[in-house]
Amino acid sequence: MKIAVVQMPVVSDKRANIEYACNKIIETARAGADMTVLPEMFCCPYSGEYFLDYGEADGGPAQTALSCTAKNMGIIVVGGSIPETDGGKLYNTSYAYDASGVQIAKHRKAHLFDVDVTGGIRFFESDHFAAGGKITTFDTRFGRFGLCVCFDFRFPEMARVMALRGALAIIVPAAFNMTTGAAHWETMFRQRAVDNQIFTIGAAPARDERAPYVSYGNSIIVDPWGEVVARCGGGEGILIVDIDFELVKKIRSQLPILSARRTDIYEVREI
Amino acid sequence: MKIAVVQMPVVSDKRANIEYACNKIIETARAGADMTVLPEMFCCPYSGEYFLDYGEADGGPAQTALSCTAKNMGIIVVGGSIPETDGGKLYNTSYAYDASGVQIAKHRKAHLFDVDVTGGIRFFESDHFAAGGKITTFDTRFGRFGLCVCFDFRFPEMARVMALRGALAIIVPAAFNMTTGAAHWETMFRQRAVDNQIFTIGAAPARDERAPYVSYGNSIIVDPWGEVVARCGGGEGILIVDIDFELVKKIRSQLPILSARRTDIYEVREI
Repeated sequence: MKIAVVQMPVVSDKRANIEYACNKIIETARAGADMTVLPEMFCCPYSGEYFLDYGEADGGPAQTALSCTAKNMGIIVVGGSIPETDGGKLYNTSYAYDASGVQIAKHRKAHLFDVDVTGGIRFFESDHFAAGGKITTFDTRFGRFGLCVCFDFRFPEMARVMALRGALAIIVPAAFNMTTGAAHWETMFRQRAVDNQIFTIGAAPARDERAPYVSYGNSIIVDPWGEVVARCGGGEGILIVDIDFELVKKIRSQLPILSARRTDIYEVREI
Repeated sequence: MKIAVVQMPVVSDKRANIEYACNKIIETARAGADMTVLPEMFCCPYSGEYFLDYGEADGGPAQTALSCTAKNMGIIVVGGSIPETDGGKLYNTSYAYDASGVQIAKHRKAHLFDVDVTGGIRFFESDHFAAGGKITTFDTRFGRFGLCVCFDFRFPEMARVMALRGALAIIVPAAFNMTTGAAHWETMFRQRAVDNQIFTIGAAPARDERAPYVSYGNSIIVDPWGEVVARCGGGEGILIVDIDFELVKKIRSQLPILSARRTDIYEVREI
């Protein structure tokens, strides 16, 4: 399976972002990708003054554009995330479409990013968004995937539940910042991959030093042994990588972790 | 609090290893350490032909020596691990003593290391040992600690339970090898520290290229932000580090992870 990650710049024109993303989906499909992953908030600057205006309900223009492009190109699209409006609330939501344009997943970010680091970033996502309440996996003809958004991936329980549901890879549209990105980004993607013996895939917006929230970038694909298969820098870029899910089986048989859990001592369970 | 980690060579003479370890405890106590941590199997080469012969029951000579030295020097000792014999079974067990020599913890390795990596290590610990069945934390005048042995730390559930019990640091006597050490050691200690917003401390035997099982070494202390505070190389060495548990509180308030868990969606629980 060939997976593409688009590390794209996010500008203040929603329509321009959508058009840019669709062009990149077309470009990656032509390059042979079976699935293309977009970053968190790919069509909306990550700042409080934009979220509501750029929001859309189920079936809105960003979603329609992604669905159409997925269908036209016959490619699976994991549409980063957008501000979703529903019942007077805003959610940070990721939609995924199969190669015929049908929505196969919808994940509302369940852990909101509230942070105040001395000398670093200060941001309270819960000032703007409501939190989702579910753990999301979806099926494709290549296998099962987990899907969560950014801060969700900080919580090993969520990744573990996805792996126990049978996910072979976890996809994380995310926008770490210059404080937490440098400190934690790569280690998190590597360790979640090793712990769960799966692939992990992070898709970030390109860095824009003038933006209100500066994305760390560094979109990344890690294999089940914890090796970084591909990684962007801060700037715009595309990763296209062949992924062999046989590696999941191989690693799990060589170094059994998932199957060696002591479920008679502890348990991770969905509620 | 000042914590010392002793990365010591392990030779085939049990008594010599115990004497060496006690000398290092004395040395680190004189250097002001409040607690000294020894490596996994500090008095027994890590190989099937030694475990039974070097084993001892509760109250055996290795334990007595550590307890006495702890008492004589007024220092907390986390005694790496030894082969423990009990009821015809062998366990890979870590004993800890307070500054008056009283045993305050006993942890039997609960996850046995069975691995067969193509082109790398092949080792089946379960051929020799029985597995413990508990998660271990213990209290000192400095706060609560988690204690597990090597492969136990591969399982995020165990670390999470320790953190939820209130551990401020997790101590891991461990002997990764040249395959898994290079691939996974540092990332694991860093990510467990970040996930649980605690200190993590790994104590390994020094590397001996001629030994039947070659230890990776690299004893390590990581802070709750995931920064490596101190780290050995492969060879013999001692780490002595001042640890400020206020950092646990500070990191948890700046970037709430432990408190932001969605316990309405998932749960990690002890059984």
